Amino acid sequence: MAGCFELLRRDASSRARRGVLHTAHGDVQTPVFMPVGTRGSVKAVSPRELDELGAQIILGNTYHLFLRPGSELIAEAGGLHRFAAWNKPILTDSGGFQVFSLANLRKLEPDGVRFASHIDGTRFFLGPRESMKIQRDLGSDIVMAFDECTPYPATMEQAAKSVALTTRWETMSREQPLGSHQLRFGIVQGSVYPELRERSARAITALDFDGYAIGGVSVGEPEPEQFKAVEAAEPFLPEDRPRYLMGVGTPRQIYEGVKRGIDMFDCVMPTRLARHGTAFVTGGATLAVKGAKCREDFGPIDEKCSCYACRNFSRAYIRHLLNVNEILGVRLLSIHNIAYFMNLMKEIRQAIADGTFLQYGSTLI
Amino acid sequence: MAGCFELLRRDASSRARRGVLHTAHGDVQTPVFMPVGTRGSVKAVSPRELDELGAQIILGNTYHLFLRPGSELIAEAGGLHRFAAWNKPILTDSGGFQVFSLANLRKLEPDGVRFASHIDGTRFFLGPRESMKIQRDLGSDIVMAFDECTPYPATMEQAAKSVALTTRWETMSREQPLGSHQLRFGIVQGSVYPELRERSARAITALDFDGYAIGGVSVGEPEPEQFKAVEAAEPFLPEDRPRYLMGVGTPRQIYEGVKRGIDMFDCVMPTRLARHGTAFVTGGATLAVKGAKCREDFGPIDEKCSCYACRNFSRAYIRHLLNVNEILGVRLLSIHNIAYFMNLMKEIRQAIADGTFLQYGSTLI
Repeated sequence: MAGCFELLRRDASSRARRGVLHTAHGDVQTPVFMPVGTRGSVKAVSPRELDELGAQIILGNTYHLFLRPGSELIAEAGGLHRFAAWNKPILTDSGGFQVFSLANLRKLEPDGVRFASHIDGTRFFLGPRESMKIQRDLGSDIVMAFDECTPYPATMEQAAKSVALTTRWETMSREQPLGSHQLRFGIVQGSVYPELRERSARAITALDFDGYAIGGVSVGEPEPEQFKAVEAAEPFLPEDRPRYLMGVGTPRQIYEGVKRGIDMFDCVMPTRLARHGTAFVTGGATLAVKGAKCREDFGPIDEKCSCYACRNFSRAYIRHLLNVNEILGVRLLSIHNIAYFMNLMKEIRQAIADGTFLQYGSTLI
Repeated sequence: MAGCFELLRRDASSRARRGVLHTAHGDVQTPVFMPVGTRGSVKAVSPRELDELGAQIILGNTYHLFLRPGSELIAEAGGLHRFAAWNKPILTDSGGFQVFSLANLRKLEPDGVRFASHIDGTRFFLGPRESMKIQRDLGSDIVMAFDECTPYPATMEQAAKSVALTTRWETMSREQPLGSHQLRFGIVQGSVYPELRERSARAITALDFDGYAIGGVSVGEPEPEQFKAVEAAEPFLPEDRPRYLMGVGTPRQIYEGVKRGIDMFDCVMPTRLARHGTAFVTGGATLAVKGAKCREDFGPIDEKCSCYACRNFSRAYIRHLLNVNEILGVRLLSIHNIAYFMNLMKEIRQAIADGTFLQYGSTLI
């Protein structure tokens, strides 16, 4: 299916794009950041809060939901939207990344991976067919093809093999039935090798997906390699389809991704750093709210932020909550950090619309 | 100060009372249940949620806030209301109960207790003077006198000694200065001995407090002893002052307390049971939402409840969240359990107003 993406404006001085992604659960203004709801919940945050924060789309993890509570239970509940009480768009990943990063006793087979659950060692098999079936059960708006996420570092030979396997698996993914409302995205691999990125992009785009992701980034490579990987693949991605940079990233990395033509991002960073007691503040710097410096600081986390946490609570109070392990501390930091990322994307969209995208970059560290 | 309490209606068939407690941060309709915000936060719940749940007044713990973050820091922040962003009434306990139940190396002295913090062993001294000073710093609407919470079981001799010490300490508590907006409540001890309960009630009411609490209950005694303790003290408490049964209790215990003339209750039960995966349902029964029986139960926790959790989420979803330790699971159960207690009190108030209080009791297990 084509036509899910509408390009509203191209930035004159970069590859940045302003667009709209149409899904069965509503439109998504791009560039967009997707908060991660690994196991059917964006950690510590409620759907109502996410909605108030302006989250347009969230991500769910196939691997985690497959293990617990199981995709059949979620299908029985009426799908992930209904199960998790989230009526806006959901993107689900394919499960491949977690099989390679979390599961044990992995055995690669032509049609997928045999592995032992990281929770209790139960044996499972996950491949393109299984992943598509699970994502069909989940009923997500955007289904990701099953790929092999090439680890970093990889030799060119390893990376080339991984690209070939990815093409095979994505071809199989493309053939599986999905719900009529579901979009399907392909994923480009190729590690840090521009020629492999090009080869993978050509092979995957030939399969005609609704959108394309650049995978195998944010896996430990130096930041310049990440930008290079995007630059190597992007020219081969069709302009009329959305592009998604998986697992990225810091505010700066997101900006650099947008500059290179990316429309969609996801990362656990806002909620994970919140659990570590760290907040993002205007400009993209981080602040250790848990630190002693905030002990008697009765100002908000960020003067310029208008989220629930910043409107009502002081750094000193949140620091106290974090130090005594009160859940409200993590809740408030999670709300604030998501607010930061939502606001970042809003400003990026506005800057593209206003033709001030390059200047906007100078406000970020 | 007298006049903080207005008696609106007496139940014809029991000692139950319907009233209003006037405080500097607003009126409290009684009988009332006060959610417990031990360390400046009702566990897992935000002030906004508490407000939406209809919480009229919350409790803060002097001992915990004294240790972390310290009452002087809270005074510097403008008091506990401002620090915790809660603009409705707050009652603070005296710290005595926790010194006796949590602290180490306790040494009783005539003017208080020397002890070691349960957190890091730091040595402190807490007595009537210190407790009043801390509660003045916190700026709570209702300050509790510093008493000795008699442990259970206690011989009559031990209990009599404890009553005498309590009278001494509360006399000292009564003499300390407080903020002009602060009410001060005395506490009756006496363990399970009716004559000691009477003796304590006579001695404490002679000190002319704004309200009176019955302490030394919910400390392990059998339920009938709890009811007896209330019955032994209540006749000696002035009708024109509010009465508070400390640390009580289950829905049934609260009902029995109201029946015996009590106006105020507090208990960690709703939030503590939530953290254990248990919900209260209509009638006062509990439901193990974490249990296997809820695995495929797509109905709400309680059909008759209209809280955020019951309006939007299924038992199956909440069970899943609890099982994978997602914070949202505890949040939703905490919201529901507080909603249950708020609704219980609303129904009790209505039943007193309607003259159906005794019938209402038959709906509770």
